[in-house]
Formats: sequence, C-alpha cells, structure tokens
Amino acid sequence: MCKNAFAIKGDIVWSKTPQELATMEGGYLVSEDGICQGVFSELPERYAGVPVDDRSGMLVVPGLVDIHLHAPQYAFRGLGMDLELLDWLNTHTFPEEAKYRDLSYAERAYDIFASDLLHSATTRAVIFATLHVEATELLMDKLEATGLCTMVGKVNMDRNGSADLCEESAASSLAETRQWLADVEKKGYERTQAILTPRFTPSCSDDLMRGIGELRAEYGLPLQSHLSENLSEIGWVKELCPWSSCYGETYEKAGQLAGDAPAIMAHCNWCPDEEMEILKANHVTIAHCPQSNMMLSSGIAPIRRYLDEGISVGIGTDVAGGATLSMFRAIGDAVGVSKLRWRLVDDKLAPLSVAEAFYLATAGGGSVFGQVGTFKEGYELDAVVLDDAKLRTPRDLSLAERLERFVYLSGEGGQVAGKYVAGRRVL
Amino acid sequence: MCKNAFAIKGDIVWSKTPQELATMEGGYLVSEDGICQGVFSELPERYAGVPVDDRSGMLVVPGLVDIHLHAPQYAFRGLGMDLELLDWLNTHTFPEEAKYRDLSYAERAYDIFASDLLHSATTRAVIFATLHVEATELLMDKLEATGLCTMVGKVNMDRNGSADLCEESAASSLAETRQWLADVEKKGYERTQAILTPRFTPSCSDDLMRGIGELRAEYGLPLQSHLSENLSEIGWVKELCPWSSCYGETYEKAGQLAGDAPAIMAHCNWCPDEEMEILKANHVTIAHCPQSNMMLSSGIAPIRRYLDEGISVGIGTDVAGGATLSMFRAIGDAVGVSKLRWRLVDDKLAPLSVAEAFYLATAGGGSVFGQVGTFKEGYELDAVVLDDAKLRTPRDLSLAERLERFVYLSGEGGQVAGKYVAGRRVL
Repeated sequence: MCKNAFAIKGDIVWSKTPQELATMEGGYLVSEDGICQGVFSELPERYAGVPVDDRSGMLVVPGLVDIHLHAPQYAFRGLGMDLELLDWLNTHTFPEEAKYRDLSYAERAYDIFASDLLHSATTRAVIFATLHVEATELLMDKLEATGLCTMVGKVNMDRNGSADLCEESAASSLAETRQWLADVEKKGYERTQAILTPRFTPSCSDDLMRGIGELRAEYGLPLQSHLSENLSEIGWVKELCPWSSCYGETYEKAGQLAGDAPAIMAHCNWCPDEEMEILKANHVTIAHCPQSNMMLSSGIAPIRRYLDEGISVGIGTDVAGGATLSMFRAIGDAVGVSKLRWRLVDDKLAPLSVAEAFYLATAGGGSVFGQVGTFKEGYELDAVVLDDAKLRTPRDLSLAERLERFVYLSGEGGQVAGKYVAGRRVL
Repeated sequence: MCKNAFAIKGDIVWSKTPQELATMEGGYLVSEDGICQGVFSELPERYAGVPVDDRSGMLVVPGLVDIHLHAPQYAFRGLGMDLELLDWLNTHTFPEEAKYRDLSYAERAYDIFASDLLHSATTRAVIFATLHVEATELLMDKLEATGLCTMVGKVNMDRNGSADLCEESAASSLAETRQWLADVEKKGYERTQAILTPRFTPSCSDDLMRGIGELRAEYGLPLQSHLSENLSEIGWVKELCPWSSCYGETYEKAGQLAGDAPAIMAHCNWCPDEEMEILKANHVTIAHCPQSNMMLSSGIAPIRRYLDEGISVGIGTDVAGGATLSMFRAIGDAVGVSKLRWRLVDDKLAPLSVAEAFYLATAGGGSVFGQVGTFKEGYELDAVVLDDAKLRTPRDLSLAERLERFVYLSGEGGQVAGKYVAGRRVL
C-alpha cells in the first residue's frame, strides 16, 4: 500500500483541454505525495487500502485559482462601485487601504478575509496587500494558516497616492520591500510566496519601477500589476511616461516582465497591438476580471483574441472592483461579458463557452503556480467538493450540466463541501 | 387598538423617489388591513399594543417584484444559455415546455418552482406558464397556496412551435384560453390573476393576435409578451408581418396594448423611435431582463432612455434566459450592463445607480399590481426581512450601504428571513 496516498470518490469533472471537459461519474481521484495520479473508474490495485474520502453524488472539480484580488479591499466589497477607476481609487480604495497601518484593524479585517477565502471554492490566489510591511506579513501569516497556496504582495507606490497612503521615495519603498522579503525568507512559509507588486505605473516613479525590475532580476520573484484597465488611466500613463510607446512598455522597459518567474497583468481591456506583442514576448499571464471591468465601467477584455494569440489567461475576482470572492460568479461573468462584447463591439471574436472559462479559472490561472488546475497525472492535487443537492430540478443532468449549473447558481444554495490543496485537506 | 394592524421593527430601507432611498434604523413599519401606514421612529400611539415582529438589526425592504419569468423553464435554469434566442427556443425551451402536457412532470417541476419562489425575496411576479391549460391551472393552484401575488399566463402559440408544442389553430388557441379563463373565474383565487400571454409575434398568427386583442377588450385583462429582444427575431417579425412599420405595431394593431389593464413587454433591447412612441402612447411597462439579455447575447436595453421618456420600467429575471430567481442579482446586473452600455455603446445614457435599479425592481414593476413596491402610506404592505449578518466586514455601514451590499452579495450568505405580501406573513 502506498504511503501518502488517498482517493476522493465522487462525480468528477475537469478540463481535458482548454475547450473540453472530461467527466467520470462515481470515479476515484487519486493523490500520492500531493500529486494527482489520475481519475479512475475503479481504484487501481496499487492503491488498494488507501483512505477514500467518499463524496458519492457530489461534484469533485479542480480547485479554483483566483489570480487577481486585493485583500484589504475585501472590507468594502459590494460598495461604491459606481465610480470609474481613478475616482474610485481616491474616494474608496486609498482611504480604506490607509487603515492597514493600524495592525488591530488589519487583524480584524484580514481574519474575515482569510476565513471567507478558505470557505470559498478557491484553492490558490494571487493577492495584493497594501504598502504596509507589518500588515502584509500579518496577512501572509493568516493565509499560511488556512492551508491555501497564495502569492501575496506588499504594494509599492511612491507617487499619486493620498496623504495617508504613499511611500516617501523610491529608495524607501525599495528598502521596505527588501526588509519584507528578508522577513518572509525568515518566516519560511510553506504555502505563501512573496510577489513583487508595483501598484500600477501611475503610482510608481520611474526610479521605483526600475528598482522593482532590479529586484525581480536579483531574486527571481514573480510580479503582478495592472495594465490598460481604464481609458483615463491609459491617458494618464501616456502623460506620466511620454517616452513610452504604450502602457505595457512602462513595465517592460523597467525590467519587470523579463525572466522565468510569472508576471501577471490584471485587466488588459484596451491593449493595442504593440502591447499584446510585449505580453506575448514576455510570457505574461493576463488576469481577466470581468465583474470589476463591468462594475467600474472599464470595458470588456478581448479574451478570445488573447487566446487565439497563444497568450496565457487566468481569471481574477478583483475584489473590491469586483464584489465577490466567488470564482464561479467570475466564470459566469467571463462568459456573459464575452457575449456582450461579441454582440456590441466585435462579432469576429466568438464568446467564451462555460468549459473554456472554467479552464481559465482553473488550469489557466493555475499555470502561474506550476502544474496546477486540472486532474492530469503529475499535477498538484487541488480539488473542491461541491454539493449541488439544493439546486433542485425534475430533470436528470449530466455531470457537465451539473457543473454548468453550479457556475450560474452556486449563490442559490450550492455548497463547498470539501477542499484539498496540494494533496492536503483544508476543509 | 386597531384590529388587523401590526408592525415590523427593523432597519428599514425603501425608495423615497425613483432616484433616492429613504432609511430608518430601528424603525417601525406599520400595516393595517394589508395597507402600509408609513414608517415611524416610534410606534404611534394609535398602534399601541399591536403585534410587533421584532427584527432589530435586520434589513426590512419592500418586496421584490419580478415582472418577467417563465415558470416551466425553471427546470433548466443555468443550462444551455450559449445559444441565441431563436436557436435556444428550438433546442432547449420548446422541448422542455412540451413536457408540461404530462401533469405528473408539471407537478414535480412546479412544486420546486413555487417553493423556491416563495423562499426568494420576490413577493409578486408576472409569469409565463405553457400553452397547456391543465398545467397552467396546476401552477396557479400552487402559487395561490404560497401566499405570493402573481399574474400567470397560459401561453398562446399557433405557429412556428415544434411538433410537440404548438396549438392547432387560432380558433383552438382562443377557445382553450376562454376555457382557462372560465376555470380561473370558478376557482376564485385571491392572489393569482390570469394574464393574456401571446408568446411573441413569431409564435402567433395574425388571426390569433387579433383574437387575443379582442379578449383583452372583452375581459379587461392584463397582457404580457416579448418585444425587440434579439436582432434575428426582429428581422423575422418583419418577414412575417411585412405590413408592420415596427415589431411593436404587431401588438398594437392587434388591439393588445390599448386599455387600462397593464400591458408588459419584456426586453425592448432594440426599439426604434416609433416603437418607443407606441410604448409611451399605450402606457406599456417594459420588463428589463439584464441577465437574460447578456446570456442569450441579445444586447443591452437603453433603460435610461426609457426612463427619460417617462416610460414605466420594471425588472424581470426571465428565468431561464436568466439563470436565477434572485431579484438582487437582477438589480446588480441592471446596474452593471448599464455601465457597459455607457462605456461601449452610448456615453450619453448615464448608467443606473443601485438606488434607481432597486426602485425599478420594487415600485417600478410593482405598479402593474397597483400601489405596490414602496413604504408610502396607502401602498399594499409587501416587505422582506433580510439577514446580512453573514456578510462580515470590519466597517460600520449605513443602511443604504447594507442594502447595496445585499444587492451584490446576497448569494454569499445573505438570507431572506421573513416575507409579507399585502400585509400577510408568508415566510
């Protein structure tokens, strides 16, 4: 009998390809040393006797991967979305983030965030914190304790913040970042990684941008930021960086995109061709955030175009530009806005199917964590168990239909009944 | 002490105007003989001693009014939305509706529908059944038993259905409708009204359309149908009715819009000016169905334009073009798509605010039931009690903020904790 092996029995659904789901009713999903061994109709002989988590009748799907959200903004999720990006930052976001200087506030807020993220369907997430080193470390401690795998970034911002929320200089921002990286190294987290996080070009002086690029090269760290979300933002970048041919170049020229570690750019609603070439050349992953882009009136990203070009795409909830941590809601929104874009903007870019958006929300975003997001042999074993019994119907449904319904109706009584991250049960 | 009077105590939020919310923390909402007497900070002396339903700390808001949904389609909600209207009807909708000839299937399906509608935040609804008289009456029996107030229509369709779902002739469709109306009269429902329901022009011959217009004049009945939802549908109507100047005229010329009883037209995504004039002249209420219009790639209705023109607008979930019965989801979607329309289609039509969309979803649609949908004196007392305790935040929130969050986050653990319809507690 294999040590460190177990199986989950249930109605298993995963992405066979970026376009197609695979399903097995009453199947066995096998994990060994945290690695997926595949899905089987009967438990293979070599696993005879391993523990089986019997979830017969429930759906078992890959863990959802949320590659763009802001933990400190969770406190005002669902509020104040009736402004566009730059006004929304100044009116709602910067005042809230400034509160995280106060560790007792951060403690209360991040307790709620970490607990709600644990109980969601998300197994991995890529997260913005604030500029505060202590509060960022507090958040990382709490996330480590959940058992989820996350990347968390102390934010860099040395210009155009508020009186309460801005770093003094590029030098002090970089020094604090080095301190934070040293602290994180010392803490020795198993599941919580540091990710470089320049807020966005308007928040970072050219010196700071270059300094962050140097840190990326020196430490080989992943990096996340925002790109071409909103038209006023794009115009502002052009003013701030008149030397740039496009917004994306401000990251590229600073050395922030090159290298093997993942680089994630959120939104990409309005990328011109040369920006798309920069994303391709640097293997950048796009974090598509459909709810946020609707709610802050930003636009609709041309995801079909990026996929056709071979660019890597994942999905983000972008709390609190988006209201909810639900990645099922984000999948449904990704499908929905792609239909509106097809109808209203460009009928040459076909809408996304549910199967395609599900892939993006699992294996697509999962790629920034390595081999993550589907049930192929060799992938890390992230799985969520979904109870859809309360979503009643007189019909008999296929497994793919049950997943489709869960995407659209999880808020109507669908339950996350279990969760595994890298082979470890966390819920 | 007043007989037939009671109060609900809680954190009360309602529409003061179509643009503005009113709020009262720890207030008393008073009902007498089913009619709202107003909201008071202290219980007025004349109501001393009436029963008080103490929901301190919970939100108390007007009942939501869903003015467009299809009960038989609830069985496949959340499925098959990746087609446009006409293909979706033939592939998913007609085959499902054909099943309602079988009363045992209808029994199972409508049990689920009626129970889920009762447990939702909706207090009143305007509903399509199928063409089957018996199943429609079964649905009406079940809805009457819930205590909700509804209008329910046996569908008329004598052309372009499927082999399994089409009436033989205009004459037989009208005869069945008369039989149904006679049965309903005999049943003597208190809360369940018949509404004339020509499916849409492509489903109804000119003779049937005229016959339904005559029934409306004869019985003074309300009427519901679909209008200018999808571009192919509009083109098809032009082919079928080459004499018409616009789709709306096919209803008007048949005598279906004139008269005092409400006429409700769902969607209205693509109304030309002359169609808008028809809606105005006949005091038609538009049922705005944002999720359905996104999911079936239909478009985005210019609701701001209709409001500016003084046209009456309510909101519909349009299950199963929309996936969910949640009117909170529908409010959020109405706001969201109005922002995308503003950004991508016409920046002269300002997006809807949450307060405006909430008004449409309560008093806007409520107007088809009379004085319904807000807490003004003289309105029928429809109220829902909302428990938002699970939507945790470290912040202190105003009542308007709590409602805004409930709109966007009700699927994350918001609960409907109580419900009154016309002064009668149903949940």
